[in-house]
Amino acid sequence: MRTIEQLHGELKKSYDIGGSPVNQILDLATLCIERLNCVDRADYQHGGGKSYFAFTDGEELSRPVRSDLFLDNPDDLVRAWNEMLKAINPDQMKCLLPDNLINSVLYTAVISFAASFDIWKKSSRKTPGTHFEVILGSLISLLLPDFVRTKFIRIPGQSESVSTDIVFGTDRGGIVIPAKITTRERIVQPFAHQRILDSVFPIGSYQSVLLCVSETQRDSKTEYVKDICVPGTIRLFQAHLSKLNAIYYLDPPSRYMEKDIIDLLKVSDYGQFFREDLALLAMPLR
Amino acid sequence: MRTIEQLHGELKKSYDIGGSPVNQILDLATLCIERLNCVDRADYQHGGGKSYFAFTDGEELSRPVRSDLFLDNPDDLVRAWNEMLKAINPDQMKCLLPDNLINSVLYTAVISFAASFDIWKKSSRKTPGTHFEVILGSLISLLLPDFVRTKFIRIPGQSESVSTDIVFGTDRGGIVIPAKITTRERIVQPFAHQRILDSVFPIGSYQSVLLCVSETQRDSKTEYVKDICVPGTIRLFQAHLSKLNAIYYLDPPSRYMEKDIIDLLKVSDYGQFFREDLALLAMPLR
Repeated sequence: MRTIEQLHGELKKSYDIGGSPVNQILDLATLCIERLNCVDRADYQHGGGKSYFAFTDGEELSRPVRSDLFLDNPDDLVRAWNEMLKAINPDQMKCLLPDNLINSVLYTAVISFAASFDIWKKSSRKTPGTHFEVILGSLISLLLPDFVRTKFIRIPGQSESVSTDIVFGTDRGGIVIPAKITTRERIVQPFAHQRILDSVFPIGSYQSVLLCVSETQRDSKTEYVKDICVPGTIRLFQAHLSKLNAIYYLDPPSRYMEKDIIDLLKVSDYGQFFREDLALLAMPLR
Repeated sequence: MRTIEQLHGELKKSYDIGGSPVNQILDLATLCIERLNCVDRADYQHGGGKSYFAFTDGEELSRPVRSDLFLDNPDDLVRAWNEMLKAINPDQMKCLLPDNLINSVLYTAVISFAASFDIWKKSSRKTPGTHFEVILGSLISLLLPDFVRTKFIRIPGQSESVSTDIVFGTDRGGIVIPAKITTRERIVQPFAHQRILDSVFPIGSYQSVLLCVSETQRDSKTEYVKDICVPGTIRLFQAHLSKLNAIYYLDPPSRYMEKDIIDLLKVSDYGQFFREDLALLAMPLR
């Protein structure tokens, strides 16, 4: 685990000074997969027909891992990761890898690291979320090389900035990217931040897209995984607090793909985001 | 601890069906004080000249308790509590007990219960916050007998309600009372909820007052208690998200009493709230 932490510390440092350490992210992911392949797995039940398991060393149990998205052969990840990098076209601001491969590659990079922390360093609860930010910020930087990547937006006349997780900006505005592995009660934050931006800047200059992994939660008493969804809250916030541009999931909860939600707010996967939607958001800002 | 949990369960049930079980709240508080008087105390340092200690059974350590606010003699609490009840004037919608006594009585009732849970039932992390709501809701009910007490506000045309902790309403609007022992990152919630209410109802018909205990946090590695304050966030939210009417603390953090905050937002104690401000809020709604 010390090697994992050390690699993470190094690439985080590189990211924080503006780098996009995509090769180190890959090295770290393959290391995590190799370590996880040495421990047991426990199967989970899920109501929606999806299949999940957890890594376990007999004592600690990892978060649920979706079987069909997780690449457990490090060679497969290396191959797909490099294909993804090759498929990046910064002129078009697109990554034209097939949808399912984008989702699978990113899911594996995020979850292999998070599951390692679940088992071997449970006390560092925030680190997997930070790493998720680093992965997304690094990748998007390769697609939007003309944009400035920051972690917050300065508000004229206020000492306090709006601390969103990732911002890609130009002098015309920016794309605001709250990145949350799962949202839970923190779903209010991106809406509140968008509302503040709408109050301070001309409407439309900043747009928020919420990037998540899933909304799964395991019941600790049973071998059951469920999606924790709050459709009414999302409808209420989108109608009366502010408008997010879209929400993207690596493992979308099916409840959020139903009509009452998608009529108000686009919910989709990372294939759609990296192949189409990011370019549409970025175009007017370039 | 089983008796404490049982008493809490009974009075919570009475509260949930509309009751104001003030006598049971007092009984429970005196029981908690008696139990806590059987364990040790550890002293804390605080930068701001306030004095704190923690209860400890040698294994678990309670949250910090402010020495000059906590009544550790159950007879003192009983006397002060009954004086408080006698000082309630529902015609004027005021409780005319001296400021320091109101703060002290309520602080003792909330913290004796919370500290008992810290030591003997650490896993029930949300119960102290629920009990804080029950204490406040019960007491305010005695001052505003003509108002309807609920936990949420229905939004016309939405299936989802705005779940604030306590609402006292009439057909003209209501007083919205988020109750949080400490706010931390949840400070965004009352501002977001007020914003939604402003978007749905005529401005001014619903007003929010945030009721808290303190913002103290102990450093687990040292014997030091500090206030965790986010003045920039509060200024930003009050300027650009929505306007809270006021924030009240039983143990106010001194940072929030400084000019840059109180110029934008009233921050005061429970004496001010129960002796003056609640009546001013309630008057136009009656």
